[in-house]
Amino acid sequence: MNPRVAVSPLAPAAFPDLPIVGGVECATFAAGIKRADRADVALMRLAAGTSVAGVFTRSATRSAAVRDCQAKIAAADAHSAAGGAAIVVNSGNANTFTGAAGEQAVAAMTRATAACLNIDPRRVFSCSTGVIGEPLPHERILAGLPAACAALRPGGLRHAAEAIRTTDTFAKGAGVRLVIKGRPVHIAGIAKGSGMVAPNMATMLAYLFTDAQVARPLLQTMLVQLNACTFNRITVEGDTSTSDTVLLAATGAAGVRVAADSDSDTTEPFRQALHAVMRDLAHQVVRDGEGATKFVEIRVMGAASDEDAHIHARAVAQSPLVKTALAGEDANWGRIVMALGKSGAALQQERLRLHLGDILIAENGAVAAGYSEDRAAAYMKRKELHIAVDLGLAQGEAVVWTCDLTHDYITINAGYRS
Amino acid sequence: MNPRVAVSPLAPAAFPDLPIVGGVECATFAAGIKRADRADVALMRLAAGTSVAGVFTRSATRSAAVRDCQAKIAAADAHSAAGGAAIVVNSGNANTFTGAAGEQAVAAMTRATAACLNIDPRRVFSCSTGVIGEPLPHERILAGLPAACAALRPGGLRHAAEAIRTTDTFAKGAGVRLVIKGRPVHIAGIAKGSGMVAPNMATMLAYLFTDAQVARPLLQTMLVQLNACTFNRITVEGDTSTSDTVLLAATGAAGVRVAADSDSDTTEPFRQALHAVMRDLAHQVVRDGEGATKFVEIRVMGAASDEDAHIHARAVAQSPLVKTALAGEDANWGRIVMALGKSGAALQQERLRLHLGDILIAENGAVAAGYSEDRAAAYMKRKELHIAVDLGLAQGEAVVWTCDLTHDYITINAGYRS
Repeated sequence: MNPRVAVSPLAPAAFPDLPIVGGVECATFAAGIKRADRADVALMRLAAGTSVAGVFTRSATRSAAVRDCQAKIAAADAHSAAGGAAIVVNSGNANTFTGAAGEQAVAAMTRATAACLNIDPRRVFSCSTGVIGEPLPHERILAGLPAACAALRPGGLRHAAEAIRTTDTFAKGAGVRLVIKGRPVHIAGIAKGSGMVAPNMATMLAYLFTDAQVARPLLQTMLVQLNACTFNRITVEGDTSTSDTVLLAATGAAGVRVAADSDSDTTEPFRQALHAVMRDLAHQVVRDGEGATKFVEIRVMGAASDEDAHIHARAVAQSPLVKTALAGEDANWGRIVMALGKSGAALQQERLRLHLGDILIAENGAVAAGYSEDRAAAYMKRKELHIAVDLGLAQGEAVVWTCDLTHDYITINAGYRS
Repeated sequence: MNPRVAVSPLAPAAFPDLPIVGGVECATFAAGIKRADRADVALMRLAAGTSVAGVFTRSATRSAAVRDCQAKIAAADAHSAAGGAAIVVNSGNANTFTGAAGEQAVAAMTRATAACLNIDPRRVFSCSTGVIGEPLPHERILAGLPAACAALRPGGLRHAAEAIRTTDTFAKGAGVRLVIKGRPVHIAGIAKGSGMVAPNMATMLAYLFTDAQVARPLLQTMLVQLNACTFNRITVEGDTSTSDTVLLAATGAAGVRVAADSDSDTTEPFRQALHAVMRDLAHQVVRDGEGATKFVEIRVMGAASDEDAHIHARAVAQSPLVKTALAGEDANWGRIVMALGKSGAALQQERLRLHLGDILIAENGAVAAGYSEDRAAAYMKRKELHIAVDLGLAQGEAVVWTCDLTHDYITINAGYRS
């Protein structure tokens, strides 16, 4: 049994009131893959004309479903979008490192979905999340598909968000309504993820939908760019999943076309809205980090390059000693200095400035004059913490979001399969 | 207070009976740097003619003492060894990120030791370990030095090993007696380290002594080579200390000269004996890993290169999800596959073979035929675990030693300073 009985203390107050995205229909069902008492499969149908973009884990041991999705996205521009598309996702088993049987399971799931919905199988994307290395009982999913296809309805993303959970303590959704050229456009997304979360990417699945019309090349470019500053900037413990998948579907049902980058009247508002939804979902994944009690933003400025800033920020975010100090509400800032020092990116001790919230902790190669340990200790009691590092070298910047490392992380992961 | 009250379950039965190394004298005293109730400074005097070699942390935020030692080792060949040498070490405060005051503390400690013992200050090495960022009350050390200098006696390395402990639950020593060209030669070493331990190097201090006579260039080359396959092959949680230092001193008191590499009659036996002492100490650091209940060897073979093998082995050794599964005695081998997949080094799923002890777990891109979860579960109950990965690509090999990640790690590190 999942030992996570309570909801994360960092969870949003409630699942948001997501907008209905035209051209998207959902259904969920219980296939009994790991547990019999909950829906564990989500099916999403996308209307004719939908463009689909995707980004995936870089793991060398990625799952059969990820490899299948990657091949389909890579070839997507060659296939007609006229017949619609579909996404089918199961939780409870990652179908990873399962050999030829795993590939056959993916083929069976995507073909059955395609047949049921009369869609080109090259436009059916499947994802699996859960334990690695155990055969996926995919026949249980096939058995439930016909009824699910018949049950597809607009809306229902909240139920899909519930069905794709594994150790997540809350379902994750985000959405926005905007107006482009006088017409309403909607963006909504769901995600799962709470452990095995690191660049690149998090251990996570995310599905993003809009009823704007966006040509696939632009959609893919936007997804890659925004993924780089959202889902690729979060970390729970530094482990990278074999199943990470983010899919972005633009159905065009709103009748508004988002044009190429040069058309700033449509592209920029859309990009900013999509960015907000993705950042919101990425933050929710961190807020549900296994055992998390602190949401932590680490901002690095003044680095030799943006990449150097990211290396420094990630070194702090992934340091077990920093994360345990955060869990203990101990302003042990020396561990931040240690993590920066080990990162391998450029640093000069005497130029470094370190802030915790608005408290200047260190400068000129030592603790700041007038630093108050009591003030820092009081700050550490907060649920949301901001660590800012100015390296004083050049203009490189990066932000990474993470959580603390607590006893509950150990409890959850020492007993995950039992 | 240090919450580690018990001794690690992986500790050796007793501190070893170390050989007396001619030309090495020790003394310890309580300077009250962090706690008043224990010796926290170790002083070691090395006879006239002693060669000293050293390797150090690569951290960009390394301590003032490390920078001072590095400069002295780099210039050592230019200074006469005739007048002897000394090492002074304190625990309880790392004197790191302490600015100009930190550098002045190092200068004061090394000069006072040099004056007390009538040694060239360029041949006095100091080390500090403990909390980062707090000023070192070095005047307390200066106050105790004269009495310590008067108390120096042969032997006593055990007391020095006690004095340099921080969160260590046991003092670490290793030694060997060998015969070279018919004459007895001795090697003995002490170490500290149990957290902030990762390549390169561990959060650790180690001091190695021999009464063989070894010229400094050969001594330095040997130390670098053996460090690469011992202290640089251990990890507790992947954090890298600002204070890592390994010093190797050859006093020559045994009257046996270890000559250049070409002289295999002396060099090879000495190298092998030194290797054994260093590996023993490195293993003891892992056995005292904060909260550790398992000692784990990860052996990677068949990699594209030795460096690739090391990257893979380290990815497994540092994965929080692998380490929590080990703590939970859960044969969740999929997490090993995940860690290999994220490492970034070359891997082909279908060529990978994974063993736990002599149990073949996975091959041909999936779980092995006949794999018995019950057998694996029984194996996981052991205190010492062997994970072997054959990548089936080429001849690259590496071994890394680590421990599991437990609740006690969190307890120790969430409250280290309090």
